[in-house]
This record gives sequence, structure tokens and C-alpha cells, in this order.
Amino acid sequence: MKRRHAIGLGAAGIAGAGAGLAASRLLPEPAAHAADPAAEAIEFYGAHQAGIVTPAQDRLHFAAFDVITSDREELVELLKAWTAAAARMCGGDYAGPGGAVGGDVYAPPEDTGEAQGLPASGLTLTIGFGPSLFQDADGADRFGIAAKRPDALTELPGFPLDDLDPAISGGDLCIQACANDPQIAVHAVRNLARIGFGTVSIRWSQLGFGRTSSTSQAQATPRNLMGFKDGTANLKAEDGDLLDEHLWVGDGDGADWLAGGSYLVSRRIRMMVETWDRTSLTEQEAIFGRDKSEGAPLSGGGEFDEPDFDAERDGAPAIPMNAHVRLAHPSSNDGARLLRRGYSFVDGSDDLGRLDAGLFFIAYQRDPATGFIPVQQALAKSDVLNEYIKHTSSALFACPPGVADGSDWWGRALFS
Amino acid sequence: MKRRHAIGLGAAGIAGAGAGLAASRLLPEPAAHAADPAAEAIEFYGAHQAGIVTPAQDRLHFAAFDVITSDREELVELLKAWTAAAARMCGGDYAGPGGAVGGDVYAPPEDTGEAQGLPASGLTLTIGFGPSLFQDADGADRFGIAAKRPDALTELPGFPLDDLDPAISGGDLCIQACANDPQIAVHAVRNLARIGFGTVSIRWSQLGFGRTSSTSQAQATPRNLMGFKDGTANLKAEDGDLLDEHLWVGDGDGADWLAGGSYLVSRRIRMMVETWDRTSLTEQEAIFGRDKSEGAPLSGGGEFDEPDFDAERDGAPAIPMNAHVRLAHPSSNDGARLLRRGYSFVDGSDDLGRLDAGLFFIAYQRDPATGFIPVQQALAKSDVLNEYIKHTSSALFACPPGVADGSDWWGRALFS
Repeated sequence: MKRRHAIGLGAAGIAGAGAGLAASRLLPEPAAHAADPAAEAIEFYGAHQAGIVTPAQDRLHFAAFDVITSDREELVELLKAWTAAAARMCGGDYAGPGGAVGGDVYAPPEDTGEAQGLPASGLTLTIGFGPSLFQDADGADRFGIAAKRPDALTELPGFPLDDLDPAISGGDLCIQACANDPQIAVHAVRNLARIGFGTVSIRWSQLGFGRTSSTSQAQATPRNLMGFKDGTANLKAEDGDLLDEHLWVGDGDGADWLAGGSYLVSRRIRMMVETWDRTSLTEQEAIFGRDKSEGAPLSGGGEFDEPDFDAERDGAPAIPMNAHVRLAHPSSNDGARLLRRGYSFVDGSDDLGRLDAGLFFIAYQRDPATGFIPVQQALAKSDVLNEYIKHTSSALFACPPGVADGSDWWGRALFS
Repeated sequence: MKRRHAIGLGAAGIAGAGAGLAASRLLPEPAAHAADPAAEAIEFYGAHQAGIVTPAQDRLHFAAFDVITSDREELVELLKAWTAAAARMCGGDYAGPGGAVGGDVYAPPEDTGEAQGLPASGLTLTIGFGPSLFQDADGADRFGIAAKRPDALTELPGFPLDDLDPAISGGDLCIQACANDPQIAVHAVRNLARIGFGTVSIRWSQLGFGRTSSTSQAQATPRNLMGFKDGTANLKAEDGDLLDEHLWVGDGDGADWLAGGSYLVSRRIRMMVETWDRTSLTEQEAIFGRDKSEGAPLSGGGEFDEPDFDAERDGAPAIPMNAHVRLAHPSSNDGARLLRRGYSFVDGSDDLGRLDAGLFFIAYQRDPATGFIPVQQALAKSDVLNEYIKHTSSALFACPPGVADGSDWWGRALFS
């Protein structure tokens, strides 16, 4: 029963039948719209989880969860239930087979209902496991999986200028919900939280209103809230062997259960947009090392031309030595490449009347030790952009490989 | 120069010319895309402000401002500058004539740039004046307009169960930015705040990710985060004489400068969605007085059929006496009708792991004393929904009539 495919009597028919509400609601509800939800559905099953190289959808709801049970079996049952619900919702269906108004009318509905009548909207749900799921702060083996924790899955090191709020950092589990309709992303996170009631609790949650990265060559490069095109040199779905080299955890990487998966780093990066907006165009472009309009490197060419870090203009480097594009470039970081999947956010305003706005940075990589960590160490040390940004949240998760089919589930290889 | 209509040399041409950045940026930037931004533009000028009966766009950024100058002329200049920028942006253009990268490259750009390459996306910008703009808390006439304050423009009364946070309530001015692309709504508010630097400061700001009301019969009724269709009985653009009766301030209403305008009430209504999600379908439907799937009144018929409050089922009222639809209905409130324009929000989560989610309620009316106030008094007293919601922010603004043409400006009649 898809959200738009249900058949049955409408409310009018029900009331006319005079059979009372209880009985009538055992019938499937009528279709709200005629369109096929599956037409906008992204395949949930596969070798890799969807939501990584999937062309970045427009909207994000990201949630980190704490596991509040100490019972391994409860956690396993939750992961199975989540997998089933996620597969259903990504296919444009309700979270549970009873739907929003089916089943026992004297019990809570099996779906919260706000997605009824809406298509799948390109929904992907991607799960990750945080270091704290394996061992608590005292080193205790919480669920009998401590021995399976890969060395790379450890708290990120502190970086200079970090201004992290622990309350919105870390987490035992994460769910990245991306969709082209924010109602669909919110619906998915909310229903997973509902299913997890008593087993997990939301630790923090972040909405992103607009993608700032492309993950496919078919997508135009979007602009971040500094007005610049972002992620021009991103790893993309079409990058073939580069994905095996830089994105997917390999068979020999020391954690069998994670082969085919990837590490997710999230950083909530507040932008001081009011200060930025009082900076000259010349300074803004020098800071990024790209021109603002086209996104071309200041050494010349077009957006997708490689920066020439040796080029000079008027006797000085055309791309300044501490420009963001130079510091973040693979050639400055032993070839490190990331697949970025960030989103812009505005979370109201602060006491000083400034927008609480910025970039919710998400990056996937095969190994944070050769990916995000060295790049961020270089940026935190020298990037002039640091005057205008502040990292307020940080997390690292290991995202397992894809779910093979309906009998498989998120984390099976980890817990089996 | 529209955001997509600019012509000139691209970055490649500029770099090739070797003319240096400063000179080259005096040229208009190249078009990022080919589409016509005006195709999705909504007319800014007119008898009424756009953004009221305009078919509700999908996304919202609402900002309340404090005026931080005591100089009337500075405020007037700001209102003129805002009007000009708003007219430009609603037409798909940059906030200032220099655009994002034109003009003096050693000065801050006249547009923050993140909307470059994007169409107007149905943007509307609607301004409102709060009671505190006319008189401060001590009753002082801040800008020589105290005598023009209509009696209706006074702080809303307290309602039972109010749990308001003063930091996100009230405000001297408000801007409601609605668009189908959130990047466009955010861009508009951010550029108005930028233009107002030193004259106004953002007091609070709220993003809404999805509309919960229809304001035109051409729109399908959306669902709120309780999973119910919302605003079925809303005042709509097609309602003709009803709009003059209930929505627009009339010539004889006691404030000439406001004739053709309307009063805006905003209420941030947190929903305890986790509690709601553990409630049975039967109870949810009894609370709303409508069926969840179709939105039909429990007295029978379809979504748009009038509720029959005398109908009985099994010897009891088919629509319970304290159902939301009964308490909010015009027949229970001396005929009060509102034009609602609300949006769903999720602002992360709270300390207890619950989503900070709900409805940012916006309602327009001719007079709050016969509109929102009596309806909310009835709801606050008896609505069973109160178990699941909490009003955390409240504001009232008088929205002046529309801007006639390029020589007119927001508030001209008030300040002239």
C-alpha cells in the first residue's frame, strides 16, 4: 500500500454507511492524489547505502540518537524495525503496514500521517554508528561490539578554533534523511524516532534547507550562504575508481563489517554572515581563491578548470597562499579527497541580532585519518575564512554498507 | 539586470584578458542559467501587499526587527531603501543595482550572492509595523507617529496556557518572506537585514519548511505535523466580498494609512509530536473533529462540506463539543474569519530528546479584536488540542496597504 495507491471508501462513504468510526477505519484510506510515489523513489537496497553518491537532494533532516537501553537484543530489534520502515518510506510508503489511519483505531497509527498524499520525493535514509556505540566514556563494551570498532572510528581530534557544543555533537547513531521535499525528510526522521521510543532518544537534530554540494556531474553547483559556489571539486558519483580509493571502505581496511561503507563527518559551521557581508568582493574572492560569479579559480579558466597554484598576477600568486581553495586542495593534503554533502541552515537569530546561519557540513570518506582530519588541520591553522566561521558541532559515524534485500538489516554484519 | 539576465564576459574571458580583477568586475557578470527569473515572479506593486492572498508559497523566512535608531529620518530612509530592494528581489533581481559582483570591488557587494542564478521563485515580501514602533514601553512617541496608532494595534492579551518567550515575541517591524525556494526567502531577509545594518537589528527569526494553509482554491490542502489537513475552511483569495469584510482594513476603520492593509498575528506553536504520536486515531480525530485521511468533518461529507454540529452518532454529538473544528468555527465566534498562512517548523530538538517542532501560525484579519483574539480565547479555554501544543511566541503587526509604484514606499502614508 503506497501512500498514494491506497484504495477504499472515502470519508463520505464511511459516514454514510453509519458503521461507526472503528470499523470503517479498518478499510484502507482513499488516495489523496493520483501520481505514482514510486516515480520519485530512490532504490533503498544495494551494495552501498543510498544517500552518499545519490545526487544530492535539496533538503536535509539529520538526527543523532543516543541509545538509552543497555540491552543488545533491544538495539538489534530496533535496527531491524528501522530498516524495514526505512525501506518502506524510501519507496513512498507509510512507515508501518497499517499506514496513517489503518489498523487498530484504538491504537496509535503506524505512521504519523503528514506524508500522506506526497510522493517519495527522492528520500534516502542513511545510518551511521558513532564511536560511543561501541564503548562508553569509561571504555565499557556496551553491546558486545567493542572488538569490532575500527581504529578510525574514534572521537575526532580537537582542532584550533573549535567552539563545539557537546549537546549538539557526537551520538551513538545517526540518520541522514535527504529528500526534495522537507516534509518527507522530517516525516522519516520523526517516524524512526517514534519507532525507537524507549530504545533511542534524539540527541540533536539539524534541518538543512538547501544543498551546498553536488554529488553528480549532472547537477549544477549550488551556492553557499557566502554567495560562492561550493564543492566544485567534490568527489562525484561518476568518479569510478576514485570512489574506491577515497570514499568506500575496502575489504582490507580492517573492519569486515564496514567494507562497502564509509565514514561520515558532520560539522555545524556557523557563518558570521553579517561580517562577511561587509567585506569587499576583492577580499571575498581572495579568501576563497575563486571568482564569486562563475566559481573559476583566480588563476583563470572556468569553474571546472584545475587551479594553477603557480600562476602569478602582478608579481604575486594569483591564488593567495592562504586561500581556501589552495589549503583544501588534494595537492596540499597528500591527495585527500572527500565527498561533501553539505546543507545551508538558518536556525533563527542570536542575542546580538545576527542570523544563526551557516553550513551543516557533511563529508564521506574511506578513512577520516587521511581524509577530513588532515584537511581540517590545515584549514584550522591557516584559512582566512576562519575569521568568518565557527565550528559549533562535530560528529563522526561509520556508515555500514548497503542493505542487500528485505531479509538484511542495518548493522547485520556488525551484530552477527 | 535580472539575476539570470546579466550579460558580459565570463571569468575565463576576464582572466584571459589579464586586466586584473578590479577592472574586470566592473563588467556585469555572466548569466548562470538561461531561464527567465520573471517567469516565476509575483507582482510587488498593487493595492494590497503581496504575500497575503497570494497562493501560499512552500517556504517561509519570517523576521522581526527592533529599530535601534531614534532618528525618524533614518527610519524613513530605511523603509524607502527596503521598498526598492524588495521590489527588485521580488522581480528576480539582485538587492542592489550593483548585483553580487558588480560595482566597486573594494566595497562590499550590493547583494550577498547566494541567489545568483536562481529565479524569483514566487518571492513575496510583506512588511508589518508592531505596536512598539509607535510607542515604547514607557508610552513615549518614538518617531512622531504615536497619534496614528490604531486602537487595534496594541499588545495581544495574555491567553490561558501561554508559555511565551519574550525574546522571540513582538518586534517593531516584521518581514514575512515567502517563496518556493527557501534559499530565495533567506536571501531576501538577509539582504534586508544587511541594508538595515545600524538602523534595525533582527529581534527573532523563524524558518518554516512547509506551508500548512492554502490561500487559494487552486491549492490542495496541506497537512500539518499532526498529520491532519489544515486550513480547509480558510479565507481564500477567491472569497471576494468576504475579504473586504474579514481581511482588509476598511476606509472607515479609524486609521487612514492602514486602509487596504491587514493585521498579522504570528504565534509559534510548539507541538508535542511524541505525545501526539502515542495517541490513538480515534482520539486524534475526536480532538480535531475531522477524519484524518480526507479531512472531512466527523458529521460526514467530504473535506469541503460544512460541519454539521447538530449531527449525532450513537446518541452523542458526531463532532464532540470541544473538538477543534467546532471551537474554531465562525459559528462559534460571532462569524470571525481569518486568513491563515502558517508553516511547519523543526528547530532541532530539546534536552529531553523531543523534536522542537510545530506550527508557525500566521493569520491575517481586518481586526484582531473580532478575529484572532476571540477565537484564541475560545481555543485556549476548551480545546483538547491544548494537551499537545504550547504557544511559545506571539506578535501582532499592522501591515500597510500595497506599494503603488516605484515612487511609493512601505509606510509612506504613515510617515507623511
